[in-house]
Amino acid sequence: MSSPLGNALIGQSGGPTAVINQSLIGVLEAAVADPRIGSVYGALHGVKGILEGDLIDLTQQDPAEFDRIAATPGAALRSVRKKPAAEEAERVVEALDAHDVRFLFYIGGNDSAETALLLLDAARARGQQLQVIHVPKTVDNDLMETDHCPGFGSAARFVALAHQGDDMDNRSLPGVKINVIMGRHAGWLTAASALARHDEGSGPHLVYVPERVFDMDAFLEDVAGSMERHGRCIISVSEGIHRADGTLIGAGEERDSHGNVQLSGSGALGDLLSMRIKAALGKSTRVRADTFGYLQRSYPGTVSDQDALEAREVGRRGVAYALGDDRPSGSVVIRRAAGDVYAPEYALAPLENLAQKTRVLPEEFLRGNNDVSPAFIDWLRPLAGALPQPGLLRCPPVGARVSS
Amino acid sequence: MSSPLGNALIGQSGGPTAVINQSLIGVLEAAVADPRIGSVYGALHGVKGILEGDLIDLTQQDPAEFDRIAATPGAALRSVRKKPAAEEAERVVEALDAHDVRFLFYIGGNDSAETALLLLDAARARGQQLQVIHVPKTVDNDLMETDHCPGFGSAARFVALAHQGDDMDNRSLPGVKINVIMGRHAGWLTAASALARHDEGSGPHLVYVPERVFDMDAFLEDVAGSMERHGRCIISVSEGIHRADGTLIGAGEERDSHGNVQLSGSGALGDLLSMRIKAALGKSTRVRADTFGYLQRSYPGTVSDQDALEAREVGRRGVAYALGDDRPSGSVVIRRAAGDVYAPEYALAPLENLAQKTRVLPEEFLRGNNDVSPAFIDWLRPLAGALPQPGLLRCPPVGARVSS
Repeated sequence: MSSPLGNALIGQSGGPTAVINQSLIGVLEAAVADPRIGSVYGALHGVKGILEGDLIDLTQQDPAEFDRIAATPGAALRSVRKKPAAEEAERVVEALDAHDVRFLFYIGGNDSAETALLLLDAARARGQQLQVIHVPKTVDNDLMETDHCPGFGSAARFVALAHQGDDMDNRSLPGVKINVIMGRHAGWLTAASALARHDEGSGPHLVYVPERVFDMDAFLEDVAGSMERHGRCIISVSEGIHRADGTLIGAGEERDSHGNVQLSGSGALGDLLSMRIKAALGKSTRVRADTFGYLQRSYPGTVSDQDALEAREVGRRGVAYALGDDRPSGSVVIRRAAGDVYAPEYALAPLENLAQKTRVLPEEFLRGNNDVSPAFIDWLRPLAGALPQPGLLRCPPVGARVSS
Repeated sequence: MSSPLGNALIGQSGGPTAVINQSLIGVLEAAVADPRIGSVYGALHGVKGILEGDLIDLTQQDPAEFDRIAATPGAALRSVRKKPAAEEAERVVEALDAHDVRFLFYIGGNDSAETALLLLDAARARGQQLQVIHVPKTVDNDLMETDHCPGFGSAARFVALAHQGDDMDNRSLPGVKINVIMGRHAGWLTAASALARHDEGSGPHLVYVPERVFDMDAFLEDVAGSMERHGRCIISVSEGIHRADGTLIGAGEERDSHGNVQLSGSGALGDLLSMRIKAALGKSTRVRADTFGYLQRSYPGTVSDQDALEAREVGRRGVAYALGDDRPSGSVVIRRAAGDVYAPEYALAPLENLAQKTRVLPEEFLRGNNDVSPAFIDWLRPLAGALPQPGLLRCPPVGARVSS
């Protein structure tokens, strides 16, 4: 089975998202539709599948299921966290050559962009024809060159909806509530919690991201201030908050007042902050902490429509770029069209501009040390989609005893 | 302002749910529509609001907002966790008498049913005309007399959807995943995770509820078995799992192999189980744990339609029962109509049958020590609503090297 330009192979890599399969189907439907591409293969568990010969023939996937697969969270091709060593990269491109694969589409984040670059270099070193297109995904939204990453909008929507519900819960039974959000190095997803705000008093009241050095004393003052102003305090905090020297808050070296509790594990940061707040504000203060965990990247019920659409489109565009006259490699990125109405534009950026690099929240999206700016909310809204407007009772108090 | 029978007062109590305001609006719309009821008041923070005179006039709430308020999670009237002492109960009913309140609607769980009963008794002791209607809500689903509780269906839907997404995530990056679910004394919500299953291999693969004694050795064998069969293992576990003597697993007395880590805090149970699994299956086993927390009761994005409808209806029915000829007190309960098609029926049960009592999973809803029965899934499905059918790739492997 020969074809004009060769076969294509798709892999998925890194932490999955709720829309990563939109990108898979976007690549697949564009690739099977174009006669210049022969077979379309899928590698199970990314480069690991190529190394181990674990490939499936996506050309034989029933297209009637495309939309259902696209709408399913998790990586349909399975994922992997693996940076190929030089010798492995060579074996990977040899395997691609043996399968006449001339187009590699690798769906992932900045580590995956590095893998894509390593494979491109290995192919070039062998003088082998191979184009490598990195198709972006990450709930962390920390890729360079792109305005935002597919996967982020849906995770942001989940975090914002969760905070909207949590704010209503906390109004019901007031106290301090800490929500620990994904993001080791960048605070995009934590910042998205602020989209939940819908009136003057609504939470999150405080937002802490890794872009700022975390100061425990300032934090405790912030919480006390919110308790005084609102009678309650919802705190959204990135798992990656750290001291000036870069050490993580809640990374295991903390002990309680008896010196015998060493916090660790999945709830460590929330528990540490809870303990400190109780010590500062008094044991009777109601303090609760939740660590949102994997729900942020896999919850299937509330995907952002815009995010799903763009995730599909970066896959399709990846194929179109690959077939362009100059036959490039690169990463598909999203830009904003000029003007007041949100509209995405697409482009191809050099892999080396994204590989292993991290894009953090810019200064104009932050406000002080514990909040985001209105500019961030304006930027975020079209990506996460409109949130429901909560309904609140608006009734006068019953004043004096009424006549019976 | 006098009226034929007197005024009504509504309170909300205990942990909120995603549909508790459906019941509030259900009571309110039925009460304002009936000329036999005068003013309709709301107590802020339940009995606390009655004691402190913190009442609002719900009759003046704009009905155009009813549906929006009903669709908002959290207790719109604010909530409270308070069992009134005898002297307080007396003061509460005195305050009700002073406001000519002859109908008290108290929306809550089994603790709230006890409060309702205490207030009814206090009124009777004073020879005071008062009907007390308990309107059920709880994500725990642990009330006696009722087939199920408003609030549970939506929480169950959240837990099932979360497990569906988590299952796809875990297929992508295989390993052991532990999800800790709300439920100290009853495993209804944990059991609901099994609704996520859609094919032979899908998770949760193991389900542990407080209705069974938890045996750590058997658990570790179960996990090893699932890893062998599926190459992965998703575990849904109630926060309330315990030893034969009733002590909670992960309640703080556990230490690691060095003897110096005392697990505690919000992630304690998940962390303990993770530690034990790694010790049994080897450190290289990928093990992750999430504790779902308050999201289960407040997430606004994926409410069960049937649950919302029934939550509204128990409020409306409460008013209808209160105005019945025999002028009863009691708790509104839901029964299933006979027949193959799900249909709810409503009734009024004596408060003393619910107060402080806990309904656990019946034997026929469990299977062995680590699963639920098909009968449970059949029972649950109409309450949580249909889940999306995940889309999976179905393609043959790429066999030999293809010709180039």
